[in-house]
Amino acid sequence: MVDPMNCLLISIGDEILNGQTLDTNTHFLAQSCREQGYQVRAKYSIADRKEEIVEALKLGVTIADVIVTTGGLGPTKDDITKKAIAAYLDVPLVFHQPTEDRIRQLFGPRRIPFTQEHHQQCYFPDEVELLENKLGTAPGMWWDLPSGKVLISLPGVPYEMKHLWNDQVLPRLLAKWPVAIRQFTLMTAGTGETVLSSLLSAWEDQLPSGCSIAYLPDLGRVRLRLTCIDPVLSDDRLHSLKQEMETLVQDYVYGYEGETLPEVLGRILLKQGKFIGLAESCTGGYMSHLMTSIAGSSAYYAGGVVSYSNAFKEDMLHVSPSTLRDHGAVSRETVLEMLEGILAKPLVNVGIAVSGIAGPDGGTPEKPVGTIWIAYGDQQTRRAEKILFTKSRLLNIEYAAYYSLNLMRKFLLGL
Amino acid sequence: MVDPMNCLLISIGDEILNGQTLDTNTHFLAQSCREQGYQVRAKYSIADRKEEIVEALKLGVTIADVIVTTGGLGPTKDDITKKAIAAYLDVPLVFHQPTEDRIRQLFGPRRIPFTQEHHQQCYFPDEVELLENKLGTAPGMWWDLPSGKVLISLPGVPYEMKHLWNDQVLPRLLAKWPVAIRQFTLMTAGTGETVLSSLLSAWEDQLPSGCSIAYLPDLGRVRLRLTCIDPVLSDDRLHSLKQEMETLVQDYVYGYEGETLPEVLGRILLKQGKFIGLAESCTGGYMSHLMTSIAGSSAYYAGGVVSYSNAFKEDMLHVSPSTLRDHGAVSRETVLEMLEGILAKPLVNVGIAVSGIAGPDGGTPEKPVGTIWIAYGDQQTRRAEKILFTKSRLLNIEYAAYYSLNLMRKFLLGL
Repeated sequence: MVDPMNCLLISIGDEILNGQTLDTNTHFLAQSCREQGYQVRAKYSIADRKEEIVEALKLGVTIADVIVTTGGLGPTKDDITKKAIAAYLDVPLVFHQPTEDRIRQLFGPRRIPFTQEHHQQCYFPDEVELLENKLGTAPGMWWDLPSGKVLISLPGVPYEMKHLWNDQVLPRLLAKWPVAIRQFTLMTAGTGETVLSSLLSAWEDQLPSGCSIAYLPDLGRVRLRLTCIDPVLSDDRLHSLKQEMETLVQDYVYGYEGETLPEVLGRILLKQGKFIGLAESCTGGYMSHLMTSIAGSSAYYAGGVVSYSNAFKEDMLHVSPSTLRDHGAVSRETVLEMLEGILAKPLVNVGIAVSGIAGPDGGTPEKPVGTIWIAYGDQQTRRAEKILFTKSRLLNIEYAAYYSLNLMRKFLLGL
Repeated sequence: MVDPMNCLLISIGDEILNGQTLDTNTHFLAQSCREQGYQVRAKYSIADRKEEIVEALKLGVTIADVIVTTGGLGPTKDDITKKAIAAYLDVPLVFHQPTEDRIRQLFGPRRIPFTQEHHQQCYFPDEVELLENKLGTAPGMWWDLPSGKVLISLPGVPYEMKHLWNDQVLPRLLAKWPVAIRQFTLMTAGTGETVLSSLLSAWEDQLPSGCSIAYLPDLGRVRLRLTCIDPVLSDDRLHSLKQEMETLVQDYVYGYEGETLPEVLGRILLKQGKFIGLAESCTGGYMSHLMTSIAGSSAYYAGGVVSYSNAFKEDMLHVSPSTLRDHGAVSRETVLEMLEGILAKPLVNVGIAVSGIAGPDGGTPEKPVGTIWIAYGDQQTRRAEKILFTKSRLLNIEYAAYYSLNLMRKFLLGL
């Protein structure tokens, strides 16, 4: 098995280091590399300082086949990246008339003056191969280094960088390093990384070399990703690996790469021609927000009641005062009556009711912060479940919401 | 003026390098450092590989006072930051019984088994100072190196990392490296960056050197930050600068550093002894979620109706079918009737009703996507306002929610 091409991504700009700009450029490049099966060895974000750029380039060629820099090409930054690359390559900056002509053509109709800064933009380190930037003034740059390695410099403006990467850089890289990778991602909910890894670890130890599992946890959900470097495996073998992985964790799988729980639940409701209604106390409208964040949700989401006060629970969901008095707002009895209340509303076929102590206050020894009661079901079948989560208010809200939506998913599928 | 403390941020994890996860951790840390006047020298993202972590640490201590790593502390196989740090420090991994006790306490009530993976989590590089993680199983780690530099290792789960940074790391850093700048932040809502800068620009030009204004826009809100390098200014001069800035933009100021609109609105409601009720259509529960995200909101938030379907608007808010038929669900008439409906609910003194076309579909020439009607008021006074925002569903939801809460804030204050 050949080692995949590996690259180093360097984003240049003080605005990244002082937290003013979130660096999405190297994230985009890392995603694109992964899709090609290229390996990103590391990502550096460094300041607009010549010496630091030179140092990073020196280090880069020792660990990667391809070095890609983004940023530091605009006229305001004094073209620091180009000066640093010229210094690293030990070549002079030379003037490039076609670039001045391009910029003048670009600006002429828009009456933008051609300034000294623009003149600066027409100087490039010698021996460069320029990559035409259809969306801006700064072209991309490509060097085939004597070592056989490649140095690429792209502007920091995200849409210019993406355009240059997709249209010019990637085709050249694929011609030089045609590598492939295959991946399969399961979306899971209802348990944590630890339980999943204990279910998979024995199987994981037997994976063929070139294949690996990654656990990507989010609150109440974990993405499981199987990666195999091509051409290690036959399609049949890969297919059976996918099935083995899914079987081992099937109790927790809700979907595949990129699918969210509200999307998946929405599709199931739509398929079954059912409308859902939500009765929320501690989740305070967050479940409804998750459901209605999906375009087209009006086809299966009827509406909800955020019954935060007991008065709302009684008036709008007809929870009986005696239930609230005898069992409290956070109890099996209350959430079941809340569920009954929402199921009685127009359109509603299935419902979820949640009441809990989100915190940070309001806990008791019997009902500590993080105690959450969930009822779900339809006219025929209703179930209630208690969970105990953390001490953090927002985490309890988010966790309870996703946990509840997953319970409804399983209920609708008869799991 | 002394040089500010400078630090190196290292995020560890294959999932960042293969583009599966956007690294927001080092962005958060960079922002926080900047607010303290600390300088971030560089950010590295590296793989879950022991040798590479060791190399990054060796390099790090040569360029920074403080090295902060995030990630690689979870129980799963690919997490090896602790082993790498032990190798770098040349100390053994030692078992820490209190951590096992903590994890067992945490899991006991939730019936999560204590696995071999959890046992692994109880080993730490010797001579470590553990920082208690209230939100997860992996504590933070702190080392005062002989060189006087500091090495800090935090988990990669964003909410755990933020909690440890804010509660444990930052206070210790501030004790060792006191803040080098002074800042004052105004929270504004109801207008954009352009209007604010036109109000401030003349004054801005006169600011003493060492002082500057930053505009930090968020959806429907802008943070205005005045930064002065210490000790350039006297306290009196800084105080008068703050007052001048606030006076110039007073129409849009809703609070100060860190205050959110739901918090401020909640305080006003509490002070006036009023309960709010919300009738949400296009915002789909998001406004209620914002209000109930604040601890103690049950003292002023009565509840809400997410009347997503016309059936819910009629049944629960008593909007008349003829209004919906003649004017449509997105109209002045409908939101005013929705408001009337929510004001009729128990406890409710003031209310907001929102109905709009969040998109991406459902727009018409007369009512394009982004058309949002808002009604707000109390039993005596009711107002309705139409706004037109973007084509993006989630942005419309968030913008409409904050815009509406700001209208209610001004209504309650008689502005």
